[in-house]
Amino acid sequence: MKLIFDQQDLANSVGIVMKAVPSKTTMPILQCILIDASFSQIKFTANDMELGIETIVPGEIAEKGKIALDAKIFSDIVRKLPNSRVTIETNENDVTTITCEKAKFDIPGKSGDDFADLPKIDRNDFISISQLSLREVIRQTIFSIAVNENNKLMTGELFEVSNNKLKVVALDGHRIAIRNLEISSECSPKRVVVPGKTLNEISKILSGEADDLVTIYFSDNYLLFEFDDTVVLSRLIDGEYFKIDQMLSSDYETKIEVNRQEFISCIDRATLLVRESDKMPVIIDITDEQMELQIDSAIGSMDEEIDIEKTGKDITIGFNPKFLLDALRVIDDERVSIFFVNAKAPCFIRDEEGNYIYLILPVNINVNR
Amino acid sequence: MKLIFDQQDLANSVGIVMKAVPSKTTMPILQCILIDASFSQIKFTANDMELGIETIVPGEIAEKGKIALDAKIFSDIVRKLPNSRVTIETNENDVTTITCEKAKFDIPGKSGDDFADLPKIDRNDFISISQLSLREVIRQTIFSIAVNENNKLMTGELFEVSNNKLKVVALDGHRIAIRNLEISSECSPKRVVVPGKTLNEISKILSGEADDLVTIYFSDNYLLFEFDDTVVLSRLIDGEYFKIDQMLSSDYETKIEVNRQEFISCIDRATLLVRESDKMPVIIDITDEQMELQIDSAIGSMDEEIDIEKTGKDITIGFNPKFLLDALRVIDDERVSIFFVNAKAPCFIRDEEGNYIYLILPVNINVNR
Repeated sequence: MKLIFDQQDLANSVGIVMKAVPSKTTMPILQCILIDASFSQIKFTANDMELGIETIVPGEIAEKGKIALDAKIFSDIVRKLPNSRVTIETNENDVTTITCEKAKFDIPGKSGDDFADLPKIDRNDFISISQLSLREVIRQTIFSIAVNENNKLMTGELFEVSNNKLKVVALDGHRIAIRNLEISSECSPKRVVVPGKTLNEISKILSGEADDLVTIYFSDNYLLFEFDDTVVLSRLIDGEYFKIDQMLSSDYETKIEVNRQEFISCIDRATLLVRESDKMPVIIDITDEQMELQIDSAIGSMDEEIDIEKTGKDITIGFNPKFLLDALRVIDDERVSIFFVNAKAPCFIRDEEGNYIYLILPVNINVNR
Repeated sequence: MKLIFDQQDLANSVGIVMKAVPSKTTMPILQCILIDASFSQIKFTANDMELGIETIVPGEIAEKGKIALDAKIFSDIVRKLPNSRVTIETNENDVTTITCEKAKFDIPGKSGDDFADLPKIDRNDFISISQLSLREVIRQTIFSIAVNENNKLMTGELFEVSNNKLKVVALDGHRIAIRNLEISSECSPKRVVVPGKTLNEISKILSGEADDLVTIYFSDNYLLFEFDDTVVLSRLIDGEYFKIDQMLSSDYETKIEVNRQEFISCIDRATLLVRESDKMPVIIDITDEQMELQIDSAIGSMDEEIDIEKTGKDITIGFNPKFLLDALRVIDDERVSIFFVNAKAPCFIRDEEGNYIYLILPVNINVNR
């Protein structure tokens, strides 16, 4: 095999497939990138058996063939080469020579035949959305998935398609993040759970342009994202996702409107006096026109008032400040509306159009302080 | 005590003295910043007994007094306050109230009398140089001090003043970095060893402007740096520094001139194939007009040629690539001259004016490969 690339193209494509190379594995072949130029195109593939990425690489095929190269070494070399023409050539022992200007590397390769192809899936049911939208929707929900693996379903996100709507849901038992997106599609209703890892990695390689599209194909056990010259194939998480509709109520006793950035800065300051291990709630005291934040810890005490617009009852309620911050930080609106029922019921941060809903459970506090 | 500041001034001054707050100590008072407004000025002090920093803070004294506040908490609060007027007020129990707009913090303080003043030193012998020069000189030598404390003298840098010249030397047993600087001063000859920690911290708070001066006062056990509204007092390291003149020779058998950036990129690429733990040398093979770098490791092999200008004999010599990179990266010249004697003698990277000299010991290699 002998291939010729531009160094920038090469570095870019290696960067994309690297996202599917596992950091640890018992199968050494999975730590490789497959370079496949058996036919008329050059294709790079990486596959950790949960997540697989394939991308077409611009380049010239001087001699057809395929080879699997250690992903880390190959990526390190490619990134450090000068911005010039790069030649990759293999010999009969799979030793691969990478040449660029006056630099020449020899590294051992593995037979490309040892590398497992990505499973083929049907491409019948699909939706198309802009790459920017998909990236934003992931960013605005992914922080709510559970970190630990006790409940596998909580480590993924629900992707639900119905009636020209894509609904993305993440939850971890203390909070729920929901984003709704209008789509135009003929897709039959779908309800699948996508691993958080897939979504994290894919949002790093999406272009983030509103004009660039990504097509998402649904199959029984896989989801396939296709965009630019790349396909990302992800195994789905098995099981029935949580019924969240019954947790969402539109009744409320108190509604406030507050400047988002001011609220963030204020919570930020309140948490200065809390050591991470303390799990001290921030106490929010809502009266007419004013919200008072209080914290009282071993380090000291803090209180601060923020102007709000309020309708409904006064309320005193405690929250884990991190959960409030996580949600407030990903919202784009300048002002947010927050809805409360009572000190033991979750609050909702949501917009009028229903584009986003963040549900956060309160922390029990002694309201008779 | 009651003081009024602008938040930016306050954050800036706290940032400066924080550099002398120890991360760990058995004496809690050392983890405090002393706010002293007993007289007509407001002064912040921190002191870890090796390194002390004092800075004058712009602000209004509404009521005189002094207080010691936990440095980390105080700094965290100050940085997160809105950019507005900040009031710091203490009560009779040393509880300190920090108010800014609608935010109010109460934190415990300690009596300012418990805080040790910085030692007073004579201000007779001194030199003045630009802050930029001092910062550059530190940056261009500090990487050569020893990391471990086996030989205390190697953890500091020699500051030698004689004949209108400041010489700064760092060495770790494998390499020496020397910077010479012309100065105009009436200072008597000096030879002191300044702790590396002091130099690291001070270079973070120097302005880096060529027009701003720093005055360095020499006393028996201390060095005092004075610049802007700040003084930095550092204990010196005891002992007689190494005689390095006898290690520096101007004889050579081979001299090369090479493009610095090209050489750096080439070494960078060569080290891709070396695991940190391997301590594999890079082998440099110098012939007419050309230098070849080679590395041959368990991961693979690499060689690359670089154009050079050469006078003298051919030579094959091995180096720890990190030592070459460290020196090459801090030199400002586009082309550098490197001098060799033989494969077992150190090489010298130096300019014609003698502004900098970097000596690097070679690694033994089998030259008959």
